[in-house]
Parts: sequence; C-alpha cells; structure tokens
Amino acid sequence: MNVAHLVCLDCQREYSLDDPRWRCDCGGPLDIRYFPVFDISNIWERPPGMWSYREALPLKADAQMVSLGEPLTPLVPLKISGREVLMKQEQLFPTGSYKDRGVSLLISHLKSIGITDIVEDSSGNAGASMAAYAARAGMRCRILVPEGASAGKLTQIRAMGAKLQSVRGNRQAAADAAVQLADSLFYASHAWSPFFYHGTKTIAFEICQQLGWRPPEVLILPVGGGSLLLGAHIGFKELKQAGFISRLPRIIGVQAENCNPLARIFNSTDPTGDLPADFLPLPTIAEGIAVSRPIRHRQVIAAVKESKGAFISVSEAEIQGTYKNLLHRGFYVEPTAAATIAGVESFIRLYPDPRGVIASVLSGHGLKVQPV
Amino acid sequence: MNVAHLVCLDCQREYSLDDPRWRCDCGGPLDIRYFPVFDISNIWERPPGMWSYREALPLKADAQMVSLGEPLTPLVPLKISGREVLMKQEQLFPTGSYKDRGVSLLISHLKSIGITDIVEDSSGNAGASMAAYAARAGMRCRILVPEGASAGKLTQIRAMGAKLQSVRGNRQAAADAAVQLADSLFYASHAWSPFFYHGTKTIAFEICQQLGWRPPEVLILPVGGGSLLLGAHIGFKELKQAGFISRLPRIIGVQAENCNPLARIFNSTDPTGDLPADFLPLPTIAEGIAVSRPIRHRQVIAAVKESKGAFISVSEAEIQGTYKNLLHRGFYVEPTAAATIAGVESFIRLYPDPRGVIASVLSGHGLKVQPV
Repeated sequence: MNVAHLVCLDCQREYSLDDPRWRCDCGGPLDIRYFPVFDISNIWERPPGMWSYREALPLKADAQMVSLGEPLTPLVPLKISGREVLMKQEQLFPTGSYKDRGVSLLISHLKSIGITDIVEDSSGNAGASMAAYAARAGMRCRILVPEGASAGKLTQIRAMGAKLQSVRGNRQAAADAAVQLADSLFYASHAWSPFFYHGTKTIAFEICQQLGWRPPEVLILPVGGGSLLLGAHIGFKELKQAGFISRLPRIIGVQAENCNPLARIFNSTDPTGDLPADFLPLPTIAEGIAVSRPIRHRQVIAAVKESKGAFISVSEAEIQGTYKNLLHRGFYVEPTAAATIAGVESFIRLYPDPRGVIASVLSGHGLKVQPV
Repeated sequence: MNVAHLVCLDCQREYSLDDPRWRCDCGGPLDIRYFPVFDISNIWERPPGMWSYREALPLKADAQMVSLGEPLTPLVPLKISGREVLMKQEQLFPTGSYKDRGVSLLISHLKSIGITDIVEDSSGNAGASMAAYAARAGMRCRILVPEGASAGKLTQIRAMGAKLQSVRGNRQAAADAAVQLADSLFYASHAWSPFFYHGTKTIAFEICQQLGWRPPEVLILPVGGGSLLLGAHIGFKELKQAGFISRLPRIIGVQAENCNPLARIFNSTDPTGDLPADFLPLPTIAEGIAVSRPIRHRQVIAAVKESKGAFISVSEAEIQGTYKNLLHRGFYVEPTAAATIAGVESFIRLYPDPRGVIASVLSGHGLKVQPV
C-alpha cells in the first residue's frame, strides 16, 4: 500500500489516515485516497477470502488484522426467469451478512490507531457485525437502536457482549444520539467511515477472481446506504486501474419501492441531485435497505452513472413472492436479500436477452429472521 | 473414482452403489468400499470447498451435483486456555452447520439414482440441511421430529417447503416412524447413509490443505451420532493411503456428560462393546450431540482407537461457561459448538503442553438459537 490520506468529498481537505475522525471539519463525508497494490501471485498462497487481497486494503500492520474468518463466498448459479444468474452467497459471513467485509477492515483500522471504545447506530446487520468484531478485537462497543427495532437482530448484538441502548424515535434519532456520544466514544459509523466500503470493495475482487479475472457484464446489488454498491464500484475501478480488467460492470441498484430515495434522485430531473424535502418513506419488509436519507447519496448516484447502470424499485408484493420462492429453492435468506432477486427478475423482464454474465448477491442469512 | 460398492459392516454383503437401500438385508449399517482418486493440481483450478475434491467423492456424474455453494470454511486461530487452537468455522455453511457437507453428497447421490421423495428423522441441523438440499434438487422432503423439538430449527425446516411431521414420543420414536414410511419414501437417514460421512470426510481434506498438506497432531470434534468424527477419520485415512500425509491425527471426541454413551463404551471394560441396557441420558443444552443410541457406535469407537485418541465428557456448567465466553469473543455459535470448546479446554488441562497443531471445529451457527 502506498501513502494514503483521508480526503473530504465536499471540500477536498486532506487528513492523515491515522486521524481518529469520522467526518471532515466541514461536515462532509470522507473518502480514502491512495493507490492499492495487487499481487495476484500472492493471492493463491493465502487463505481465500477478503484478506487475501491484503496489499489492496488500507491497513498498515498485519498484526492489527481483526478477522473472524471471512470465507471466499461461493458464486452459485441460479435460474431466475429462465436466465442463469451467478449469486454471490454473502449471507455466509460469520455474522450472517456482507457487512462483515466492511466491519473487519474498519475495526482493524480502529485497532491500529488505538481506539478502544466505539459507538455505532444500527438496527440490524451492521450492529451485529460491529458487536462481533469489536468483541474479537477486545473493544468496548455500544450500539444505539431505534425503538421497535427487530428483536432477533438485537439478540445477536446483545449476545456478543455489546451494550445495547434503545433510543426514542426513528432510525435518524438513533444516529443523532450516536453523534452526541462521539465526544467520549469513537463513532464507528458504517455509513460515514470510508474504511467500511474499502472493505466491501473486496466483493468485486472476489467476483473477478471467481470469473477468471473478468468482471460480469451486469452486477445487481441491494442499495440502502449504498456501502456495498460503492465498495463494489471502487473495487472494480481499482482492478481496472491496475490493469486486471478492461471495463466496469453495469451496476444495477435495487431499492424497495416503499423506501427508494436513491432511485428517485437518479430518475429525477432536479439539477440539485437532492432528495425532495417532502419524501416520506413507507415501511418495507426489506429492512436492511430501508435507509431514507443516505449520507453518501451523491457518491452512490455518481457510481451508478459511471457504470452506465440504473436503479430498479420493487414492490412489497414482489419481495414477498420472491422471498417464498427463494426459500423453497433451498436458499435460506432474509427478506432484504429477496428484494435484490425481485430486482433481478425485473431486470430480466426489462432486458430479456442481455449478453454476458449477470451476477447478484444474497446479502443476509435467513436465520436472522423468522420467516412468515 | 474407481468401481465402488456398498458393503455391510456386520455381514460384509456387497450391493451396487446404485441400490436404493438404506441398510443391509441383515439390518446392519452400510459402508462404501472404493479407492478415491486425488488430483491436487486440479483442486487449485476449482472453486475452493468440498466439491474441489470431486474425484474423491463417490458420485458418478457431475450433472448430479446438488450444491448450495459450500465455502472452504476458514481455519481461525483462537487462544484457549493460553494455547492457540485452529478453529474450523463449520457454522458458515449454507444452512448453518457442517451437516451440509454430508447432505450435499447424500442428496446428490439420491438424485443420481432417481429418488424424488425422501423422509428423514431429525430435530435439528440435519433436518434443516436435508430440507434445503432437497429443495435445491427439486425433491419432496418429509422431516419427522419428536414432540417438543426446538422451535427455531423447525421454523428453518418448514421455511424450505419440507413437510414437517411431529411424532409423539422421543427422538427414537421419530426414527422408528421414519422407518415405517421407508416403503413409500426413501429413508434418507444421515445416521444410516454412508454417503453422509463420505461428504463430511471433506473436512479432513480441507484441514490438511489449509495446513499445507499436513494433518494436525490433535483434532477435537463434537460427537453425537459420530458422522463428523467418522467422516474426518476416513478422510485422513484416504489422504494417508494416497500418500499425501504420513500419519493420522489423534481424534478426541467430545460428548456432553449428560448424554455420553460413546465415552462410556470407550472407557468401559465390557468386552461386548455395547452400551449398558440401563443407560439413561439426561437433558443437555448441547442438543446437536444428544444422541443416546448411536447406530454406528462400533465404527466410531474403532476410529477413535485407531487414531490413538480418546473421549472427553463435559458438564452442563462447563458448556454454559464456554458458550458465554465464545459469544463474548465474537464467535456466534450454538451451545453444541460450545461443548466442543469446553472439551478443548479439558484437553489442554489434561495435556498442558501438547506438541504440534491442535485443531477443532465450531459446528453450528448462533443464529439457530436464541442465546440465554
């Protein structure tokens, strides 16, 4: 890894990578500026999975790696609407979701700069992942959740020894409360930290490796805050810059119709690129992507545009139908994962005969929820 | 793969591998007699995991492979009582337990001989796995469970579209009821079918591959029916026969003190090698290994003896303590997995300074149960 910096996406101010900050002084979100190194010959000598791309991850000392054993998630063919789609089994991570990619790198980084106490807001998979990796690193961890968050995932967070704190109000209220605590505890936000999506970018590395160092033509991903989509896009770009692949896949972001701010911005003619102030989300069973005000919305929209991609919104009825169908085919996933596959079905309806490889992901384990 | 046969362990009668039978006419359990082929050069060109050892698995046609994407489960170092132990993360299989190794091969075989309807008795992980792989293969699946079986795992079985049938009485009553149905449905028993442990044997292949084609000195495994232990032992023997390793690891089987028939037989002086008729198991939170009358007890005892291993029994208090400790270190497993690690702690107390590599497994996912 070369010299790396944190850089503000709004004002371009730079900070040292070791600066224990979660955003720019101007309030803008931070990115990481650096040029990753790839050494494919090394990859084969290492245990497969995200840490086999060690040189491409912005972490200085190997000794700081915090890992629970992140498998190379299989890429499994599944017939969807008559078309073979390669499904990346991201539900097979230690805590049952792809969030472990981001959290493993983020907690490793925080450990490397001496952080011992973290706070995070989440009502689901990110919180469970943070609790597990903090426990593995020996850090104290506090997770703030909105009232009425789903009981099963809270059990998982509590089981890992994290301190769980319920906040009156909605998801945003929990985030605001976490910021309040950021003076005494490090705000290890998966939405704010660029280390999170520099962990999730390894999904792109793995998919290309699994396809013999070729990107798929189309990659269909669930989008809430956008950290998986951003990570994937950055991962493909880094592989292209390094000369391993010659083009980017078209990235299709899937949102629930009931909570689709990014799809609305993408398809809107409003030149500000902002979400209309009167946007009001409705409840969705795809709780993992129910993010009404994504922090990195500009970055996500730009990534999808650069990839010549698009957004697809799926209805609750479509998600329910696909969910049942996936379970009955042996894939035990949570409803959020079914939303993605409902998006794949939509995509194949819109483009009945797309050329090349279509890849997608199953994002969260079925054991996390009790199926209806 | 060479020509293979089913062979009875009691009367040595042989049957064709394609014979759709679950036991010998004499009532004895069947084994598979054949000489597996290994081609390590091929392994590296394939997706990592159990099916990369394709030639060593007794399945004729590739087209019959029924897979949900079985990852190469990571081998993660964990300090236990001051000693580093390598923990195989078997909870990261598609249905949340190592059973998928056995079931993936078993269902593949059944598909290859034209079976379309199966029945199995289970109250937990094997049933969930069977339901998932049957769904993937398009088979109809019926799972018989004893009254009062744990609700979480039943939800998982039902979600996959399997027909769930509650049987009055205990675990043995469910097994008896399954046998009753074996005239009209194929009895796909993970306890009876040798294909099951010819699937689980891949854990030995993977561990050796991960250690640079060396076996560990000691392998500590949970034992209920013994299918993981038998599989591991057979896997190491096959690697030794093929010349890839020069010795077998010492296998330590861990049972719950409250239900430890194999440990009792192993340590008994009774020359019959049978369980005393008055043996009465007590309840244990390690439900995955609560098998009071294991069908293959002679085979399991012989395997542990051949490996110069032993049995360790752990108390409920030890399991509870280790369970909480594992969760607080970030490993989200079910109580049965904690029993194994309590056994590892016992082993290290008994042999404070064993030479070489100690390996063990985390067998089932924490998401399967609600932690206490």
